Amino acid sequence: MTRAVADGRELAGRLRRRDVTVAPAVLNLLESRTDDAREQARALLRAVAPAELGAEAGGHVVGITGPPGVGKSSLLSRLIAEWRAHQRSVAVLAVDPTSRRSGGALLGDRARIDVDPADRDLFIRSNAAGNRLGGLAPATRAGAAALAAAFDVVVIETVGVGQSETEVADVADTVAVIVQPASGDILQFLKAGIMEIPDVLVVTKADLGRIASRAVIDLESALRALGSADTPVLAVSSASPPSGIAELVAALDRHRAGLDLSQRRLQSRRLHALADFVAEYGEHGLRSLGGRREAERWLAEQEPGLDVPTLADALERRAEGA
Amino acid sequence: MTRAVADGRELAGRLRRRDVTVAPAVLNLLESRTDDAREQARALLRAVAPAELGAEAGGHVVGITGPPGVGKSSLLSRLIAEWRAHQRSVAVLAVDPTSRRSGGALLGDRARIDVDPADRDLFIRSNAAGNRLGGLAPATRAGAAALAAAFDVVVIETVGVGQSETEVADVADTVAVIVQPASGDILQFLKAGIMEIPDVLVVTKADLGRIASRAVIDLESALRALGSADTPVLAVSSASPPSGIAELVAALDRHRAGLDLSQRRLQSRRLHALADFVAEYGEHGLRSLGGRREAERWLAEQEPGLDVPTLADALERRAEGA
Repeated sequence: MTRAVADGRELAGRLRRRDVTVAPAVLNLLESRTDDAREQARALLRAVAPAELGAEAGGHVVGITGPPGVGKSSLLSRLIAEWRAHQRSVAVLAVDPTSRRSGGALLGDRARIDVDPADRDLFIRSNAAGNRLGGLAPATRAGAAALAAAFDVVVIETVGVGQSETEVADVADTVAVIVQPASGDILQFLKAGIMEIPDVLVVTKADLGRIASRAVIDLESALRALGSADTPVLAVSSASPPSGIAELVAALDRHRAGLDLSQRRLQSRRLHALADFVAEYGEHGLRSLGGRREAERWLAEQEPGLDVPTLADALERRAEGA
Repeated sequence: MTRAVADGRELAGRLRRRDVTVAPAVLNLLESRTDDAREQARALLRAVAPAELGAEAGGHVVGITGPPGVGKSSLLSRLIAEWRAHQRSVAVLAVDPTSRRSGGALLGDRARIDVDPADRDLFIRSNAAGNRLGGLAPATRAGAAALAAAFDVVVIETVGVGQSETEVADVADTVAVIVQPASGDILQFLKAGIMEIPDVLVVTKADLGRIASRAVIDLESALRALGSADTPVLAVSSASPPSGIAELVAALDRHRAGLDLSQRRLQSRRLHALADFVAEYGEHGLRSLGGRREAERWLAEQEPGLDVPTLADALERRAEGA
C-alpha cells in the first residue's frame, strides 16, 4: 500500500489560515525521510516563511529546558493553563532523549502535563525527533518554525544542561531555563560558561520559601558577575495554588517584545540552514564551503528574507560548485 | 614557509617502543587538517592498531567526566600522583568546552592540576579538540587510542552531564563519573536514563562526612533500582591528607581486569570509524550505507582486528559504491 504524501503547500496554506488541526500532519510530513516527503516538506517551509518574518511574525517560539526532575512538566501544565485562559493557542514539542535509551520508561514525566483532551487549540507532540545525542533534529527545528505560523505560542521542551540550551537558542525566540533550588550544578555550569545565559531563568518550588529565595539570590549574583544583570530570575510554584505563573508569562512576553524579532529570526534561519547542511553533508561538505566561519559569513550576505530550504539549497549548490 | 608533515609510521614506531616524548607530535599530527597530515595520521593509527588489541593491549584508557566545580582537577592531581608513585606513565587529554565560549577564562580549572614539570612520564594536553557542542572531536578519539600504545594510563577528561559520558564511553575502557555531595541533578539524570550508568561513580569531598556518605547511599540505591547494584560508588577526598585515592585506582583497575578488553576495543573501533564517517559525510553518507543500524550491523561483520582508518575507508567505499 502506498500512502499519499501530504501536499506541503496546502498544509502551509492551512497553517497560515491558523488552522491548528493540521499540526499532526505537518509534523509527520517534516519527520518523513522519503524523497517525495522531503520535497513537500521544503515546499511547506517555503510557503510558511513569509508568515514567520511577516508583520505579526506568527507565534512566539519559547524554548524550555533544564534537568529532569526540576518540575518542568508541572510548570508547563500551569503555563499552558495560563496561556489558554487568555485564549492563546499552544503547541508543545517535547524532545525526550530517554526514548533513545533503555531507561526511557523511568522518566514518566510526560504523563504529568495536565491537558484537556477536548481543547483543539492545544497540541502536544510528546516525543519530537531528537538526534542521537539528544540534540534537536532538523525536523524539530522545522516543526517549530512551521507551527509558529498557526499557533500563538510554540514551546520546544528539552531535557539537559549545558548543550541543549545552545541548540534551543538557535531556534527559539526566547529561552527559559528551569532549575530547582539548591541545584549547585547549574550555578557551576553558568559560571564556567558551559551553559549559555538564558533569556529567562526560572527557579521552581518557590513554595519551599527560603531555599528558593536563596537560589534566586545566588543566580542573580552569578548573572551580575557575568555582566548579565538584566536577565530576569523568577521564582515560581506549580503547587496548588500556583504562584509566579502570570509573572513568568509576562517575563516571556517582555523578552519577546524587546527583541528585534525579524533579526533574530533571520539569524535563526541561517543557523537552521547551516545545521541542516552539516547534518546532511558533514565536515566534508563544510570544507567545500571553506569552513563554518566562511559559510556563516556567506549566509549573512544573502538577501534577507530567504527561507530555510532556499538557503540550504544555496549552500548545497555552492558546495557542489566548489 | 612549508612545515614538514610528521611521518605517521615513524611516530607509531616510537609510541610502540613506549617513547612517551612523541606525545605532542602525535597529537599535533592527528589534529592537523591538511591532506598530507590526514594521510600520515591514518598511517599512524594503522601502525598502532596491533598494540591496541595485542596481548598487553597497551595502556588503560580512563574517561573522567562530571559537571564543573565538583573537584575533577584536584582529584585528577591526586590520581596522577598515585599512578606516578607506582611508576605508571600517564597522559591526560582534557577537553575544555569553554575554550569555544566567551566564558572560557572563568573556568580556570586547568591550572589546578598539580604536576611536576620535570616528569617526562606525565603528559597533559589541557585543551584537546572538542566539537562545536563540546563532544569529542575525531582527533581526541584517535589521540587516546594512539597514546595508549605508549602510556600506562590515558585519561580523557570532559566536562558535562548527560551527553559527554556517552561519547567518552565509546572511546574509554573505563568511565568514571565524578559528582559532589548534594548534587540532585546527577541523581535525576541517572534515574531518568539521560545519563548512562558509569563504570565507577565517585563522590568528591568525602571530608564533608555525613553529606558525602548520604550521597553515596542515595546513588547506591538509585543504581540498585536501575539493576546496576554492582557499579562501585566511592567517596574520595582530595584535601590534605587525601582519602580514597588508592581505593579509586583499585576500582578502576578492577573494572579493566573484568572487561573483555579486546571485545570492548573492537566495538570502540567500529563506533570510532562510524563516528568519523558521519562527521565527515553526514546523514547523506549514512543513508548511502542504508542507515545507522545497517552500518553498525555491517561493521560488526567485518574481520575483527581491522583498524579504524581501514574500517572508515571501507565505509567510504561502500557508500560510494551504493
